Amino acid sequence: MHNFIFENSTRIIFGRGQISQIGREVARFGRTVLLVYGCESIKKNGIYDQVMSSLWEAGLKIVEFPGVKSNPMLAHTLKGIALAREVQADVILAVGGGSVIDTAKTIAAGVKVDHDVWDLFTYKKPILSALPVLTVLTLSASASEMNAAAVMTREEGLQKFSIRSLHIQPRVSILDPTALFSLSAAYSAYSAVDAISHLLEPYFNNQESDSPFQDRLVECFLRTIMESTEIILKEPSNYNARANMMWTTTWAFNGLIVAGMGVTSLPVHMIEHSLSAIYDIAHGAGLAIVQPGWMRYMQKNNSRKLARLAREIFRIDGNDENEVAAEGIEKLKNWFAAIGCPTSLVAGGIPEDEIEKIAENASVLAQTWQLKDYTREVIVEILRQCR
Amino acid sequence: MHNFIFENSTRIIFGRGQISQIGREVARFGRTVLLVYGCESIKKNGIYDQVMSSLWEAGLKIVEFPGVKSNPMLAHTLKGIALAREVQADVILAVGGGSVIDTAKTIAAGVKVDHDVWDLFTYKKPILSALPVLTVLTLSASASEMNAAAVMTREEGLQKFSIRSLHIQPRVSILDPTALFSLSAAYSAYSAVDAISHLLEPYFNNQESDSPFQDRLVECFLRTIMESTEIILKEPSNYNARANMMWTTTWAFNGLIVAGMGVTSLPVHMIEHSLSAIYDIAHGAGLAIVQPGWMRYMQKNNSRKLARLAREIFRIDGNDENEVAAEGIEKLKNWFAAIGCPTSLVAGGIPEDEIEKIAENASVLAQTWQLKDYTREVIVEILRQCR
Repeated sequence: MHNFIFENSTRIIFGRGQISQIGREVARFGRTVLLVYGCESIKKNGIYDQVMSSLWEAGLKIVEFPGVKSNPMLAHTLKGIALAREVQADVILAVGGGSVIDTAKTIAAGVKVDHDVWDLFTYKKPILSALPVLTVLTLSASASEMNAAAVMTREEGLQKFSIRSLHIQPRVSILDPTALFSLSAAYSAYSAVDAISHLLEPYFNNQESDSPFQDRLVECFLRTIMESTEIILKEPSNYNARANMMWTTTWAFNGLIVAGMGVTSLPVHMIEHSLSAIYDIAHGAGLAIVQPGWMRYMQKNNSRKLARLAREIFRIDGNDENEVAAEGIEKLKNWFAAIGCPTSLVAGGIPEDEIEKIAENASVLAQTWQLKDYTREVIVEILRQCR
Repeated sequence: MHNFIFENSTRIIFGRGQISQIGREVARFGRTVLLVYGCESIKKNGIYDQVMSSLWEAGLKIVEFPGVKSNPMLAHTLKGIALAREVQADVILAVGGGSVIDTAKTIAAGVKVDHDVWDLFTYKKPILSALPVLTVLTLSASASEMNAAAVMTREEGLQKFSIRSLHIQPRVSILDPTALFSLSAAYSAYSAVDAISHLLEPYFNNQESDSPFQDRLVECFLRTIMESTEIILKEPSNYNARANMMWTTTWAFNGLIVAGMGVTSLPVHMIEHSLSAIYDIAHGAGLAIVQPGWMRYMQKNNSRKLARLAREIFRIDGNDENEVAAEGIEKLKNWFAAIGCPTSLVAGGIPEDEIEKIAENASVLAQTWQLKDYTREVIVEILRQCR
């Protein structure tokens, strides 16, 4: 087990009817709130009304900043920063999923700097302060509601980069599982894949297995996510399945899993960032394509751990470690397909003859993320496994 | 899954060599630190020197308050409050296990009130503020290093009561697994039993099993604690076993396990509090006596969940739920005995003919803890199962 620091101060208010608390929570941090959200979906499912009435009741001044899209873009976020400055926002409230929350986090940090905001993403400048961020979660996958990270795409060169700072960690997040009832089958499945990928990347990093606690946690989370997803796809309004899913995905990427694992990396997320930056595919769909391909690429070096996954999660028997490992990867891929995700580049609408172009984009990211083993050649090899 | 609030802001600094950071961390909160600890053990194993040198380096004014005993007593703690006031302490630093940390927490809250400190424990008065508490953990069991609770015994009537407030939650805790290397086999075992009891009490509370995540978490924690303890008893300086144990016990009672379980209760802890208040038995030893007895008492109402435990943890097969459940309880009891714990009142040196007296003490506690099902008669029945 490696040395680590764990710190996660987000206050989680979880359950039915809890969105009504948001006004009171926001009011602890100021009077003028910038309300960041996406498109019409929160107006259709009633969450917008719940949030607005709670903010009004608390006597807050509300300034709306809608229009956040999946894979949020820097240009739009810069408009949010300008608006937050103009209205002298005290608090940023995100009502949405990872894209909305990450936009809110970037606005919160961006308001405080007078240099190019992108310098925060390229680590040229540090994040020294930010406005308080609160969230009402409507799509459960990124764990952004309880972590210190934000992901953003810059139009120029289609670079999808990330920042990480305790200053942008949400102070309060409200998780009401009923907010997920209207989530489409496709996005429910993508959420599952995102969380599974958050779990599997460090799991395979923890090769030495000197931390059985961490391995068991990952396996406990995986079982819960897979079981919940299968129920959700049949019964979208099953409260307990949505609740288990919502809470598990939050913990899948809030620091607990990786605490003690040493330096963990997210190469699957990195390669997927290039896919979704270039082709605007949903993040979870992109991960369903890359995750099994990356595992195949890894098999030559890590069949022991892959075999453990196959045995623990898919109950695959057998003595040949390589065969068990390969069968486990196939089972995972089939499960992704069964819940309705693309599991090959072609199925995701991505031209196979553009593998070099994707690898070029991802290899730039690999430098920033300091994943020096992930050269352009290696990324090409992984992408070939995604066919 | 029930509604809940989860908030746990303690910063954990975990790993080898991390005690040297304590001076810098304490200095963030003030200049005069009250150093609370127990007896000579931290001087023998070198932790005292590590702490002192780090505090000196940070230029802090150190006032020592040693002499905390297991099952800490109010009278001694009141002296700590007086001393903290006298020297105008800014920060309370606990170097020890649960008893030391709970003393520090009580001092931190006690300094701020001008009424009887015991009123906080009987819930007659609320905790509205406290001095910042930091900890260096040397005995891993209570999870007090990462939770908002403190337990204290009042000499009058031998009442062992508890308080709970975010104000006394440690700001920073340093967990260095090497600090546990010199821990005796007996206390290593008691730690395991304490953590197991923290897990099993809510596990059996979660009868509806509408939260598979929580059930699986408990089982994941149990396996890790049992496996680590078996290694530790053979190899007391096995770093990874100590590290896994230390981190798992912290999470066993810091709010995660019970989040979503609804109202959980701790009847085993409650009855044990009477044992250790009257007979000054180690808390973990007392729990090893009461836990299996309580499970036997429960069997008539909850054999399904007991059978699940038996199957998941002890791999017991069989179709008769009651038989499987009973065998699981027996296996747990045998495991407690195998790691060197008493598993009956007599083995713990507690006279069987004093069951009524213990039940009398515990039934007072049951009223404060609002465990109204735990009448004197019920407690007698449970204690009879502990023979």
